[in-house]
Amino acid sequence: MSISAFDHPILSGLLGDAEIASHFTVEAEISAMLAFEAALARAQACAGLIPNDAAENIAARCNDFTPDLADLAKSFARDGIAVPALVKALRAHIGPPHEAQAHRGATSQDVVDSALVLRLKPVLSIFEKRILAIVSVLDQLSRDQGATPLMGRTRMQRAMPILAADKLHQWRDPLARDLTRLDELRPRLLVVQFGGAVGNRAGLDGKADAIVAKLARLLDLGAAPCWHVERDCLAEFCNWLSLVSGSLGKIGADIALMAQNEIGEIKLAEGGASSAMPHKSNPIKAECLVALARFNAAMLGAQHQALVHENERSGAAWTLEWLVLPQMVAATGAALNLTATLCDGLRFIDRSRT
Amino acid sequence: MSISAFDHPILSGLLGDAEIASHFTVEAEISAMLAFEAALARAQACAGLIPNDAAENIAARCNDFTPDLADLAKSFARDGIAVPALVKALRAHIGPPHEAQAHRGATSQDVVDSALVLRLKPVLSIFEKRILAIVSVLDQLSRDQGATPLMGRTRMQRAMPILAADKLHQWRDPLARDLTRLDELRPRLLVVQFGGAVGNRAGLDGKADAIVAKLARLLDLGAAPCWHVERDCLAEFCNWLSLVSGSLGKIGADIALMAQNEIGEIKLAEGGASSAMPHKSNPIKAECLVALARFNAAMLGAQHQALVHENERSGAAWTLEWLVLPQMVAATGAALNLTATLCDGLRFIDRSRT
Amino acid sequence: MSISAFDHPILSGLLGDAEIASHFTVEAEISAMLAFEAALARAQACAGLIPNDAAENIAARCNDFTPDLADLAKSFARDGIAVPALVKALRAHIGPPHEAQAHRGATSQDVVDSALVLRLKPVLSIFEKRILAIVSVLDQLSRDQGATPLMGRTRMQRAMPILAADKLHQWRDPLARDLTRLDELRPRLLVVQFGGAVGNRAGLDGKADAIVAKLARLLDLGAAPCWHVERDCLAEFCNWLSLVSGSLGKIGADIALMAQNEIGEIKLAEGGASSAMPHKSNPIKAECLVALARFNAAMLGAQHQALVHENERSGAAWTLEWLVLPQMVAATGAALNLTATLCDGLRFIDRSRT
Amino acid sequence: MSISAFDHPILSGLLGDAEIASHFTVEAEISAMLAFEAALARAQACAGLIPNDAAENIAARCNDFTPDLADLAKSFARDGIAVPALVKALRAHIGPPHEAQAHRGATSQDVVDSALVLRLKPVLSIFEKRILAIVSVLDQLSRDQGATPLMGRTRMQRAMPILAADKLHQWRDPLARDLTRLDELRPRLLVVQFGGAVGNRAGLDGKADAIVAKLARLLDLGAAPCWHVERDCLAEFCNWLSLVSGSLGKIGADIALMAQNEIGEIKLAEGGASSAMPHKSNPIKAECLVALARFNAAMLGAQHQALVHENERSGAAWTLEWLVLPQMVAATGAALNLTATLCDGLRFIDRSRT
Repeated sequence: MSISAFDHPILSGLLGDAEIASHFTVEAEISAMLAFEAALARAQACAGLIPNDAAENIAARCNDFTPDLADLAKSFARDGIAVPALVKALRAHIGPPHEAQAHRGATSQDVVDSALVLRLKPVLSIFEKRILAIVSVLDQLSRDQGATPLMGRTRMQRAMPILAADKLHQWRDPLARDLTRLDELRPRLLVVQFGGAVGNRAGLDGKADAIVAKLARLLDLGAAPCWHVERDCLAEFCNWLSLVSGSLGKIGADIALMAQNEIGEIKLAEGGASSAMPHKSNPIKAECLVALARFNAAMLGAQHQALVHENERSGAAWTLEWLVLPQMVAATGAALNLTATLCDGLRFIDRSRT
Repeated sequence: MSISAFDHPILSGLLGDAEIASHFTVEAEISAMLAFEAALARAQACAGLIPNDAAENIAARCNDFTPDLADLAKSFARDGIAVPALVKALRAHIGPPHEAQAHRGATSQDVVDSALVLRLKPVLSIFEKRILAIVSVLDQLSRDQGATPLMGRTRMQRAMPILAADKLHQWRDPLARDLTRLDELRPRLLVVQFGGAVGNRAGLDGKADAIVAKLARLLDLGAAPCWHVERDCLAEFCNWLSLVSGSLGKIGADIALMAQNEIGEIKLAEGGASSAMPHKSNPIKAECLVALARFNAAMLGAQHQALVHENERSGAAWTLEWLVLPQMVAATGAALNLTATLCDGLRFIDRSRT
Repeated sequence: MSISAFDHPILSGLLGDAEIASHFTVEAEISAMLAFEAALARAQACAGLIPNDAAENIAARCNDFTPDLADLAKSFARDGIAVPALVKALRAHIGPPHEAQAHRGATSQDVVDSALVLRLKPVLSIFEKRILAIVSVLDQLSRDQGATPLMGRTRMQRAMPILAADKLHQWRDPLARDLTRLDELRPRLLVVQFGGAVGNRAGLDGKADAIVAKLARLLDLGAAPCWHVERDCLAEFCNWLSLVSGSLGKIGADIALMAQNEIGEIKLAEGGASSAMPHKSNPIKAECLVALARFNAAMLGAQHQALVHENERSGAAWTLEWLVLPQMVAATGAALNLTATLCDGLRFIDRSRT
Repeated sequence: MSISAFDHPILSGLLGDAEIASHFTVEAEISAMLAFEAALARAQACAGLIPNDAAENIAARCNDFTPDLADLAKSFARDGIAVPALVKALRAHIGPPHEAQAHRGATSQDVVDSALVLRLKPVLSIFEKRILAIVSVLDQLSRDQGATPLMGRTRMQRAMPILAADKLHQWRDPLARDLTRLDELRPRLLVVQFGGAVGNRAGLDGKADAIVAKLARLLDLGAAPCWHVERDCLAEFCNWLSLVSGSLGKIGADIALMAQNEIGEIKLAEGGASSAMPHKSNPIKAECLVALARFNAAMLGAQHQALVHENERSGAAWTLEWLVLPQMVAATGAALNLTATLCDGLRFIDRSRT
């Protein structure tokens, strides 16, 4: 289907991000969910809550299990969540005598949230690498072309001369700070979710802490208190996404302005064609950066609405996150890719002598 | 792919709307684009701008033409628009001697915007029918159960008794007004887009008015001045979508509150299951209505950002619309479907004597 | 105080609107509240619910009553609403024997919402006049300078020549449609609020319809069912505000782009000075139009969140409206004033021969 | 004036924050601006750019200078900034021979941004203290009442029992994380702004680094590269504000739900009165928390739009910040105060045995 540009067979080529999207397929999500169930069984065996052979059997069955998507879809349409159907089918797949030991003490939200975090982990690494690469390209541009004189413009009017190095500095510094922010939020965000029905880790024979610690280690995530209703780390992450796309949007706005024919202080390696005007070369990637920045800014407002997460689980607030967060990730990924392409072959032009 | 819940194989079963989504497939969009090109050729023939046989040939070729999606995707990734590649391929499909007569005087935005409006037309009819059906069900509920006493609650506290009829009234009236608003905005929204490269309908031998009038008639849309950069009618439409989903969100919030165990003033035909608590019956569709309302409210803010559409065409503002509007349509469609299901079999419970 | 630019002694000179703000002072609000109470008493006397002399006495006392603001502030801080204290003080001012007849069958929301609508009425007239004036100035500009050649620019690149008349057309048409929309929404918006404690107009001896009809006539508003929890007409009005400011934002963006030194296709009568660069003339009013458009777009999202108005009165949703709507009105007023100033003395410059 | 609830003589008693507002008065802003000018002169003297006696004279004159507000308002209305008029008046106040040494190498944005940061510094301290106090009260509540059984509720349905300690944990933990985040962002946010006309610190005889370092020390701020167009730290701060108010909004939503008559798991020390129903006790402060959370969430979207800050200074993006940031600060302050009051005297009620 193609309601969203990020899923659209044509639009996603420019506005989407295939590498990031691969972590948001149904298959990737189910695989992460099963990884959680397997690790949970093992952690519970390790803590002595369930037998070792039950855990090994569950883990093995998680590994060779392929759920029926139509069945999950039906469950989701009925229950607002696909986990009950997934667990039921998984238990049938496990069969006696260990089936009842799977998903023990867990609730749907444990599975869904942990599966999200498991996939955000590689996403953060990808984003980090891309930002580092862009920073490095901007630094190289500064070394190569930093001495090129440009006109500094304030309030859309010519002000005083600057150098390309000044401009590159403005583009680069927020991204460098975003890397610092990423280091700060990572340990808060990349933590396992495990709370059980109402978040109090009941029914675990007093072994909750040991189970969570082991579960986290097995999944290579941090351990943390249950955060079923504490959505601040997700909102903080979305802020980070919009900081990144917003700073890239500034680069896009600058490029589109500098590439105006009468100004011509920048030249791109490639431009977009027009169906009516073959002579044109449109800075379409720069414009997309502005669109993605404005999109993420508005979506961030939506994600923050989900902070008002009532009681021990809010179907309304949680569902809202599902509508928002993956798109913000995709938009940021696309913006990073577009920026990398734009910077490649970008040339500043000295117009001070014309 | 499944970045967006509306395109997600599992989530779209609850949060999406297959009937509406069918108008937002690539196939539906291309089909509408080709319908525009065919009608344009015929309108130009009718006005004497191009020969009749050219028009008939172009229209026939539009009819049996299937573009290569990969080619369009490549064009989109390069040009930020797929129309140049589509027109090029269509012209190759038409071949000599009429190929040059296709897309005459048109620009990409004419094709894309008109193709959007052509698909919004049936969408409006679907929405109208669904709202009418909900209003009718609410009226029937009022006739059947309107005398049931309920507790009126203000600021989350018991206030004074009301009747179910009062509650149904609150739910129904905004929807009835939305039908009026739909009648008002329809003639503004459902108009053909035709402006050429910079919106001034140049290069048409002074036949622009006749062509637009005929083009609109052929497409069964209204005629209007070029609205390349006047995006108010799209923003108005998105406001309408969010008014609808917002009013349905109020119904959802009410149902979720009334269905609380201790209050129990409403009973739904069906509830959602929990993976950890088999005794529960969750008002998940009601919660989804709240989530969809909050999503659309935030997205409306994004669409209104796109009103700042600079110069004669803004790639930034236009692209932003593509990221927003289809999702708002899908969210509204899903909310209408969920409301219809929720109202079906809904029972108000008199708790005044307990 | 000066938390908001619209209330700021310095910033409001540019970003505010003194004429509009005069309808949003405490004094204007209290005056409208008392007008409601007076009209309510008279309408209830007319319907035979309370004695005529009670009504005349109440109306007279409403007229010579000045409540103690500090007392209202204390009430608001305690009750989240100032009406209970206002009514109590008003009743003390009326004294025996008629005091109990004041505010009969009414609730705080009736007073607050009606007082809002009473003040929006003159605001709509002011906005209508200003839009008409701008449309008329744009038409005059078209007659005077419409033939001036300009460069049409798409995706921030030179495309094909247009005329100033084309540009003026783009600026003018959305505003003309906004006048039509105003006519459509006015009868929905300008209606009296009267519902009593839980919106069902209880305790009025079956005279509710007659009272509402008379009340509406006395206040020169429309009659309508109680809309305590049906906030669609307010959200629709905010959409209208953002449509207006958004279309003006497009004018602002165009002017700022055209006024760039290298492009110079427009000349403003006046520009802003810089503390560091005396040679500059900044298109600050044009930039403000963009800022106000983006502000209103985001605020519109907030107002639509308030559509999810639970039960028979939501303190959360209602309070949110108070935080949003007046600012959107002020922002729109300021944008209209700035546009009028900008258009005054604006000159298009033919650069095609340079 | 009273366009904004935060500036409204009546509404600000509940929705505003007098302590925070005192840092956003015109007087506070001008005082901070003059502190910047004084420190700048001294830093430049220290670096040998201007004579010592000039610096001391300028600093003394900054100290006894009271600008004419009407004059600044006129300047703002004309220039979109009040600094040119302020500097002109300050120079007249300084008089010969040192007048020309004031504001040397600085631009309006240096003054305005630094004056903002200077006032945000005490604001951060106030917020930190308030959050610490709330965390401490929640901890005390946990010690005193943590063992009280409550019903855990998921998706608005009774699920499984929890303890008050679990609920208090959910409320407390995000606030504790916000304290960590505050420590992280503080050194990024509390830095001096100094860049000159186009941000490149020109015209300072190569003494820029020394001047900035000294200027920062004198103002007790951090030193940093010019951030005229790098608005990420302000957007990050606004995210922090909305994280705080969002987490408090969750507390408000919980309280309003738990205080429902039929549920009654919480009792507040005080409730709000109703004009129509004297028997009611409304959780109005809890509702305000929800309203403020939703307001800030939407405003955050607006602030992030301002990340797209074009060229070397964007009047549009910068002005948008002025419309948004102070209100977010005020809303957060009010939410913290309301939460403190709500927690004071709050009692959890064991309903498990009824």
